[in-house]
Amino acid sequence: MHIKTRTHTCGALRESDVGAKVTLVGWVHRHRDLGSLIFIDLRDRFGRTQVVIDPKTLPVGHSLGFEYVITVSGEVVRRKDANPQLATGAIEVVAQEVHILSASAVLPFSVADTISGEAHDELRLQYRYLDMRRGPILDNLVLRHRAMMATRAFLDARGFVEVTTPILGKSTPEGARDYLVPSRIYPGSFYALPQSPQLFKQILMIGGLDRYFQIATCFRDEDLRADRQPEFSQIDIEMSFATHEELFPIIESLVQQIFTSCKDATLPSPFPQMSYDTCMELYGTDKPDLRFGMEFIKLNELAMQLPFPVFQEALGNGGIVKGFTVTGGADISRKGIEELTSYVELLGGKGLIWMKLVDGELSSSIRKYVTAENAACWIERLKMQKGDAAFIVAGPVRKTHQLLDHLRRRIARERNYIQAHHFAPLWVTDFPLFAYNEEESRLESEHHPFTCPHLEDLHLLDTAPLKARSSSYDLVLNGYEIASGSQRIHDSALQEKIFLTLGISPEERVNRFGFFIEALRYGTPPHLGIALGFDRLMMILAGTESIRDIVAFPKTQKAQDLMTKAPSQVSEQQLKELKIKI
Amino acid sequence: MHIKTRTHTCGALRESDVGAKVTLVGWVHRHRDLGSLIFIDLRDRFGRTQVVIDPKTLPVGHSLGFEYVITVSGEVVRRKDANPQLATGAIEVVAQEVHILSASAVLPFSVADTISGEAHDELRLQYRYLDMRRGPILDNLVLRHRAMMATRAFLDARGFVEVTTPILGKSTPEGARDYLVPSRIYPGSFYALPQSPQLFKQILMIGGLDRYFQIATCFRDEDLRADRQPEFSQIDIEMSFATHEELFPIIESLVQQIFTSCKDATLPSPFPQMSYDTCMELYGTDKPDLRFGMEFIKLNELAMQLPFPVFQEALGNGGIVKGFTVTGGADISRKGIEELTSYVELLGGKGLIWMKLVDGELSSSIRKYVTAENAACWIERLKMQKGDAAFIVAGPVRKTHQLLDHLRRRIARERNYIQAHHFAPLWVTDFPLFAYNEEESRLESEHHPFTCPHLEDLHLLDTAPLKARSSSYDLVLNGYEIASGSQRIHDSALQEKIFLTLGISPEERVNRFGFFIEALRYGTPPHLGIALGFDRLMMILAGTESIRDIVAFPKTQKAQDLMTKAPSQVSEQQLKELKIKI
Repeated sequence: MHIKTRTHTCGALRESDVGAKVTLVGWVHRHRDLGSLIFIDLRDRFGRTQVVIDPKTLPVGHSLGFEYVITVSGEVVRRKDANPQLATGAIEVVAQEVHILSASAVLPFSVADTISGEAHDELRLQYRYLDMRRGPILDNLVLRHRAMMATRAFLDARGFVEVTTPILGKSTPEGARDYLVPSRIYPGSFYALPQSPQLFKQILMIGGLDRYFQIATCFRDEDLRADRQPEFSQIDIEMSFATHEELFPIIESLVQQIFTSCKDATLPSPFPQMSYDTCMELYGTDKPDLRFGMEFIKLNELAMQLPFPVFQEALGNGGIVKGFTVTGGADISRKGIEELTSYVELLGGKGLIWMKLVDGELSSSIRKYVTAENAACWIERLKMQKGDAAFIVAGPVRKTHQLLDHLRRRIARERNYIQAHHFAPLWVTDFPLFAYNEEESRLESEHHPFTCPHLEDLHLLDTAPLKARSSSYDLVLNGYEIASGSQRIHDSALQEKIFLTLGISPEERVNRFGFFIEALRYGTPPHLGIALGFDRLMMILAGTESIRDIVAFPKTQKAQDLMTKAPSQVSEQQLKELKIKI
Repeated sequence: MHIKTRTHTCGALRESDVGAKVTLVGWVHRHRDLGSLIFIDLRDRFGRTQVVIDPKTLPVGHSLGFEYVITVSGEVVRRKDANPQLATGAIEVVAQEVHILSASAVLPFSVADTISGEAHDELRLQYRYLDMRRGPILDNLVLRHRAMMATRAFLDARGFVEVTTPILGKSTPEGARDYLVPSRIYPGSFYALPQSPQLFKQILMIGGLDRYFQIATCFRDEDLRADRQPEFSQIDIEMSFATHEELFPIIESLVQQIFTSCKDATLPSPFPQMSYDTCMELYGTDKPDLRFGMEFIKLNELAMQLPFPVFQEALGNGGIVKGFTVTGGADISRKGIEELTSYVELLGGKGLIWMKLVDGELSSSIRKYVTAENAACWIERLKMQKGDAAFIVAGPVRKTHQLLDHLRRRIARERNYIQAHHFAPLWVTDFPLFAYNEEESRLESEHHPFTCPHLEDLHLLDTAPLKARSSSYDLVLNGYEIASGSQRIHDSALQEKIFLTLGISPEERVNRFGFFIEALRYGTPPHLGIALGFDRLMMILAGTESIRDIVAFPKTQKAQDLMTKAPSQVSEQQLKELKIKI
């Protein structure tokens, strides 16, 4: 096999190259055989170039098919009918030599014409390499590479050291299911693939590394949602002798750096911060999308004055009445309101109250309960201007927040409040330390059990643990949680107390975390850290809703690789060596 | 907890800082309590600084113990008795404020005094974080980070794109045992952890990526040698439309770049190249250490003329007589020669013949068989000068090569022929395509089954496969194989033929490699690649013989993590969900 060295990629030639003798290699993207002349679109990752072949001198031209790999040598000439769509559209290459490097069988689907639709998804995953040749996936992989390069350069420059932590780790399931790996040397024992390098990075701080990072592969054996993969990447960061006041600006600059290197977008500086409680008050969620307004307004006091049974019942049961105003929303039609109401009901709500301010007059689904005097109060409280609408929900706190959050995001989408290339980051701080797991009737960590409680709330651990706040923080971008971290516990007694409060038995504590509690005893520096969901960040940067678009070889929602057919059966011999049975 | 922000690391202060008010944080490395004054060596990853505490004003000074984490604020003063051993030895800090951030329990071993010896190895692994605080391991991790940064910057600048390939892959065991991961969703099916991203990177070339790299974690479930770990890192590279003539200079510059960034060392340029056959002839190994000479000299013709039964027997059985000359080796004592002879016998050799040239006279263990005329021929053939010695072995080819290789390296070590900071790379090319597995009576790939045969040797596949050479290459450095690669097969028919020749049944072929043979059919570009053993490279750069020194959390030879105690038992519930039994 003779490979003539290419002189240019298929995306490189311009009008200034006219007259040059060049050699290109690539795939036959399109070909038009006019009998006396053959036109080829030669493609590689960098672009496409038109090639003209005279079959009288180069009869090989007739035997070329889609996706053949060929090498073409020839002269660059000016194209008569320039194609402004193509970067190389001003020129074409008149072939003097053509060699087939590799033929192609008939394709299962066309590379040149993009297909779409659910029906083809499985085929595209099965022939991932053909799907790659169409462009977007490879572009995303290059984007991902650029983001990784930017991340590493940025953190390296600030004294962070990338350390590779083990993939074959210990099973300490907390939250999600571990992937297990049977040990051949110790039959009956298992390694676990890490859900995160959490304990290893803390151990590195205890070991004195000072500043650590890793673009780490992590694993969770969960039933997958559309935006999850069994293995995923996170930018994992930990530092000693610091507080979030030092960490936040570093992370903000890092994210900005990634955005700068991948997308021409500027983020606000500094990122705004909001406590978890305020987030819930204003947006009903701990990951509010700040690209649009419509903050919630508490209406309990006004609602109490109305003889509207729904309000009275909600408030009587300790619930709330809350709503938000949609600027110019008075143009939402009766049908539109009906659809929003159905949506709220679909989500488990009991109904939706609307108000409109048109020509100075308040109209509302509960107009009859509202006196003229009251109406003015509602308009003022809801900050309604002429032409605005407001939507109100009454009920238990958590449910009401959830409904309004969904409603707010739906209205923003429907009314196109979200501008392209608008990126709105937010630090959410002071999360509750614990959440109550109703199913298992026990406390669980909101973040993870290594998170330091808010020092002001230490006294609550015994008396009212659910009221205790933690020194944790999330970074939210456009309504997605893209990072999560905390100040860690650096005191083994406090760490044991947290495990105790979580109801982890002393035996389990020793088995699962014994080595770590032990490590904390030998002079642990105060430390804190964060992990950025790298795949999520890439989805936002690539502007896609599917994680499959930004991973080279994704798995299906059933965690299957359709290309290689993994997982698969293995030989009896393999199982025998591992001493396991199915 | 109040963490005062440090103004300097413990390695930063110099004479020019005298008079400055500073805050340091770190570990109490040493402390001398003189009653009226307390001297502390405060340590962090960056160095050590002497701190002076007056317990009259700072009684906390008395309560400090080894490895306590403290923060110290004070003034930098010139030290009366400067310590030139320490970068900060010109100054000390007179403490004005001292806070304990974290106490330490009594240590299992001292951090300040290095220990060594087999007895402590397990303890050091169990308390890896304490071992880290002593310095060398963290220094190696930083070195490793620098090498990774250099690798990425270099390859990125040459258009290589880093792509993360899956860890949860398909079991296609070839050579080594796979680590398996049971699938919960498909009971009885398993993922395998990759032994290398070989097929994925080839698929990326088929998908048109053009140039790929990855610092990839790979896995092998083998009984471990001292220099192996169950998981290891390789710099994995693949490129399309190129030959080794383009690849070699890239890899040479990459290795030089890594050496430049980690160690002030220059490698020759270009790296020398040698065929496998020549390597075996001259050094008896495919990974010769070129830091010293002592090339083998074939002595069959001369040996044939001597009535020495050992030579006659060896040659009669198709064996060889070979040896090498040791410059100035005539000073090797009788006892020295006896030890070398025992060494050869220990390795399974039948004996060692020596010759010495002293005062123009040849002495030798076989002097009585050598006539005066013959002696001159031996001296000439062995290129012996006055004061030289030569060592000769006779026997079957493979065994003789092996013995001489060991002997050559031992003599080089003993006679200190190896200079520090001398790095001698070598490309070894044209390996045999197949090796014969005596145990299983079948051919196996010398490199791997995706390696392209030497195109001149294609006709040998049917007639004499063991004579066929491959388009593969190893990079050897100082006697270690640090990289291995090949031109790949890009033709599905040839790929099938290789599987056939390897005796892989059609069924197995489809099960294990079906997707890949299929992929090769749709226009596969010619491509080639290489993988550099990153851990091995780091061992050479760090100047250590143990892989444990250059990995953050190594496992023992039984693949156990002594710190976390992985692998470990898991819960019945976990096994039940996976539907597996032990």
